[in-house]
Amino acid sequence: MDYQKILDEIYAEIKPELTRGKVADYIPALAEVPQEQFAMSLTLADGSFYSVGDSKQKFSIQSISKVFTFTLALDIYSKDLYKRVGVEPSGNPFNSLVQLEYEHGKPRNPFINAGAITVTDTLVSHYGSEEKTIQGIMDFLCLISANEELYFDPIVAASEMEHGDRNLALARLMRSFGNFENDVHETVLTYSKHCAITMNTEELSRAMLFLAFGGTDPITGKIITSPSRAKRINAVMLTCGHYDASGEFAFNVGLPGKSGVGGGIVATIPNKMSLSVWSPGLNKYGNSHAGTIALEKFTTKTELSIF
Amino acid sequence: MDYQKILDEIYAEIKPELTRGKVADYIPALAEVPQEQFAMSLTLADGSFYSVGDSKQKFSIQSISKVFTFTLALDIYSKDLYKRVGVEPSGNPFNSLVQLEYEHGKPRNPFINAGAITVTDTLVSHYGSEEKTIQGIMDFLCLISANEELYFDPIVAASEMEHGDRNLALARLMRSFGNFENDVHETVLTYSKHCAITMNTEELSRAMLFLAFGGTDPITGKIITSPSRAKRINAVMLTCGHYDASGEFAFNVGLPGKSGVGGGIVATIPNKMSLSVWSPGLNKYGNSHAGTIALEKFTTKTELSIF
Amino acid sequence: MDYQKILDEIYAEIKPELTRGKVADYIPALAEVPQEQFAMSLTLADGSFYSVGDSKQKFSIQSISKVFTFTLALDIYSKDLYKRVGVEPSGNPFNSLVQLEYEHGKPRNPFINAGAITVTDTLVSHYGSEEKTIQGIMDFLCLISANEELYFDPIVAASEMEHGDRNLALARLMRSFGNFENDVHETVLTYSKHCAITMNTEELSRAMLFLAFGGTDPITGKIITSPSRAKRINAVMLTCGHYDASGEFAFNVGLPGKSGVGGGIVATIPNKMSLSVWSPGLNKYGNSHAGTIALEKFTTKTELSIF
Amino acid sequence: MDYQKILDEIYAEIKPELTRGKVADYIPALAEVPQEQFAMSLTLADGSFYSVGDSKQKFSIQSISKVFTFTLALDIYSKDLYKRVGVEPSGNPFNSLVQLEYEHGKPRNPFINAGAITVTDTLVSHYGSEEKTIQGIMDFLCLISANEELYFDPIVAASEMEHGDRNLALARLMRSFGNFENDVHETVLTYSKHCAITMNTEELSRAMLFLAFGGTDPITGKIITSPSRAKRINAVMLTCGHYDASGEFAFNVGLPGKSGVGGGIVATIPNKMSLSVWSPGLNKYGNSHAGTIALEKFTTKTELSIF
Repeated sequence: MDYQKILDEIYAEIKPELTRGKVADYIPALAEVPQEQFAMSLTLADGSFYSVGDSKQKFSIQSISKVFTFTLALDIYSKDLYKRVGVEPSGNPFNSLVQLEYEHGKPRNPFINAGAITVTDTLVSHYGSEEKTIQGIMDFLCLISANEELYFDPIVAASEMEHGDRNLALARLMRSFGNFENDVHETVLTYSKHCAITMNTEELSRAMLFLAFGGTDPITGKIITSPSRAKRINAVMLTCGHYDASGEFAFNVGLPGKSGVGGGIVATIPNKMSLSVWSPGLNKYGNSHAGTIALEKFTTKTELSIF
Repeated sequence: MDYQKILDEIYAEIKPELTRGKVADYIPALAEVPQEQFAMSLTLADGSFYSVGDSKQKFSIQSISKVFTFTLALDIYSKDLYKRVGVEPSGNPFNSLVQLEYEHGKPRNPFINAGAITVTDTLVSHYGSEEKTIQGIMDFLCLISANEELYFDPIVAASEMEHGDRNLALARLMRSFGNFENDVHETVLTYSKHCAITMNTEELSRAMLFLAFGGTDPITGKIITSPSRAKRINAVMLTCGHYDASGEFAFNVGLPGKSGVGGGIVATIPNKMSLSVWSPGLNKYGNSHAGTIALEKFTTKTELSIF
Repeated sequence: MDYQKILDEIYAEIKPELTRGKVADYIPALAEVPQEQFAMSLTLADGSFYSVGDSKQKFSIQSISKVFTFTLALDIYSKDLYKRVGVEPSGNPFNSLVQLEYEHGKPRNPFINAGAITVTDTLVSHYGSEEKTIQGIMDFLCLISANEELYFDPIVAASEMEHGDRNLALARLMRSFGNFENDVHETVLTYSKHCAITMNTEELSRAMLFLAFGGTDPITGKIITSPSRAKRINAVMLTCGHYDASGEFAFNVGLPGKSGVGGGIVATIPNKMSLSVWSPGLNKYGNSHAGTIALEKFTTKTELSIF
Repeated sequence: MDYQKILDEIYAEIKPELTRGKVADYIPALAEVPQEQFAMSLTLADGSFYSVGDSKQKFSIQSISKVFTFTLALDIYSKDLYKRVGVEPSGNPFNSLVQLEYEHGKPRNPFINAGAITVTDTLVSHYGSEEKTIQGIMDFLCLISANEELYFDPIVAASEMEHGDRNLALARLMRSFGNFENDVHETVLTYSKHCAITMNTEELSRAMLFLAFGGTDPITGKIITSPSRAKRINAVMLTCGHYDASGEFAFNVGLPGKSGVGGGIVATIPNKMSLSVWSPGLNKYGNSHAGTIALEKFTTKTELSIF
């Protein structure tokens, strides 16, 4: 299939959508990103990759980082991780406390904020400090994206903390139920930092490749995680990857994926490729408006889907 | 792959599980089914099929019928159907009214009771009466399962109506929000009857074949629904097919599927096969205990999964 | 105190408020009532009474009837009544199903719709039929209001049934939890009829007199209910009499009271008097806008309050 | 009326109840209080007072302090206070976050934890620091209880902070909605300290006297608050003073009151007297078991009630 041609077509067709949606404004540092940007990249098993748009432009990966921290924590804790976080869609907005109270402090899944903060908390326990945890996450991200160095944006991280009352409330609520191990501030700071990591679509599509190929990086041959875990991470992306629009995404796109409020989305087509798309304008669910449509166009044009 | 051998293995391994779980007892007619029964069937595109256990034993398909009514309604109403029912996981038990009230009478998806009753209501509007609707559903089921005649169990349907207060409450609540077109009693009766249809695992795996093959029955060549709709029905089965254990099922089994409180489950492996399993003992979420485990064993042994 | 002067003052002051608020429009029969009407009446222990405005104009008493059915049921069932309905404020709108589902079909109090329907259900069980129940309620109302004959408006009752889906949903939901004894339709019809009783403020203030005087009608000397029950009915009016604005009413007016969507309100000042006020325009909580203000003016001017 | 005789009777009758209930154990410092203690005191307008039991024994006043901080804040902010906190019963447990999220960070009333923390936040804004706020509250309490000095228990306050995750979560959640002015830790520390104030029933009944007499201390003649505010504080105590058992308390006791998890309860009988009772064993709603029964006995024996 001529993937470059397909990406070029999508790029041409998507332009009217770039002015729609709304850039995340809950923290000032994200609100400044110009809206009319778009990039899309895909990586194949043989290392060939295709891109269109601003695919070198770094952006805040935000909740996409949750896929990587979940993978890391699953490798460290194995099934014990599920004592602290579930794998069920929540049916509620990403930062809701309601379900968490009814369900005694155990978050529904690792991709809503509460669940991701829990996962970060397990990593802080493992690595021993905020600094070492960020280092561990960075090392892992460099490994899977074949990068030498990656950074988080300290301004975004600080801005996130400054407006982090909701996340601190979630952490405190979990702590009140005994589902928290470290200092609340330290864990939420760690969480804010890994959300503030900046990458571009080329790097992100490369980083997702192991998840499209049963846990093993098909280019380097390195085993990143087990086939069983890779399969399960894809399953959780499909059912829970887009908050309370996860069903819509599965329905319209039909791929395991994870979005971030920075406008990025990553996705896998198991045994075929990994993808990343970016456009900062968000739809009402907090997922990239143009990015979601671009992925839908891609699965329609290629007739690739897991279903 | 030697499917018969795999089914035989599963049958041998599953025996200790047959005493676990709990037969549905919310209506007397279902509570009488002996628990220690098991059957599993799969159908391939070339018409070959494999079975193990009581695969000729008919049972009440219950919520599995929702897959077929959803398919029918989608063909009749196309996208307009989504004005009345969503495609999002609910995160709540199958018969909850809470979300329905908060969301002004529009059910989250066609597989929770409220959503399925809405779908039935659209069918009653289309066919014109309870009797003609049941006939329409039966004709469709005969078509897709290559059967000449199928029946519903009138005792189960009557028992369902007698204990149908919760379903009537759901219907009334939707009606109070203007999301209901026919007589409440008539629609819920129609719903109770199609839930009371009896089939065995051979028939059910056969009936699901078109959904595994893009909407076209690969044996007869008949187009049952469009590729796009088949893909979307599979997506909704994956995200919403097992109530508030849908995430767990996707996570552990990794296939689009739909369960019923009669102990049946249907599933598809897109482009490969369709399956059905049955064992009456249910887990705490109302899904077949042994059936879920059997499917998990099947995807583990065959390494088939959509992820 | 010169009560007539105070009522006259209130009448003069209240005029600008009569165009505010909004006449109940959930059933057509109520929506036709002209908005700019007002009446207020009070009755003292010696039989003297004072009125202002359209105090002979009959209106639909609606939820005010719940005070009388609760009194009747309490006399019949005594403490056993509390097995089926509580006495706690609900914190939710009058017709919400949410709490009822969480709390397994037991309504919070007898003044939200679910609770009042339960009370009516106990009366239907006691009297044996819808017709006899309505007769029993009417006889009771004639007794306490010193009337020879009272009526319900059959058009309002029919209109109420026609738009009664929410009430039928509440009844069905309670039935699904085993908290319902009679035919759902029959009980909700009985409920709709007693809500459709028409009275004026003179009759209503007279009817409430026994509750202001420890259960005994101070004019006739008849014991209507025990002192302990009268006290408790007043307590429930204070904490639950105005749905999710009960706190505001206690805070601003400081009297036990009960409102109806027909625009009527009744209230007691224990050991002093009973009152009724009427104006059809409702505030956002479904309580009479001008009526609430009039009562607030009354307690301010007279410095009468239970606090 | 011979109040001493009545208190003595209650003391004799209440003994079997003292072993029932359960001492608060959510913080270690409270869990150590011996359960079988009881005291009851009442103060009349002429300064005469009556007591029974351990009426000199100081205990942690806990949520009773909310009545005093509410009074203080109402005098400082007048109606503006209601922009930040409502006066409606919550229908939920004292520390629930659910309603707070649905209602965008505005607590239902000043007596649930969220509301009381908001009130404390307004006081910290007014006084300028945690230390000065505690001093302001202490001065006010000394004034109204005719004491020269009062203390908070630093061990209880510290223990409260150590187990204060739920309160910090509530504060954070309100802050995320913009309904918080000071440092979260500082305000919650201030709150924990005023909850840790220790008083006995004699002091508490004396401190409540102004609320029973329209805001003016009848003994000293000092105006503590306006008649209108006194009336409203009583109304909020009646509808919201006992969390989700406020209806039951109004129903069974029939007096405005406020309980604390230290086992204390205060109550007023407007224009007659103020009361305080104490017994550490709590009922399932977190209110003193024997204390509630003692007040119920008091209103039954004296036939005093607001209804």
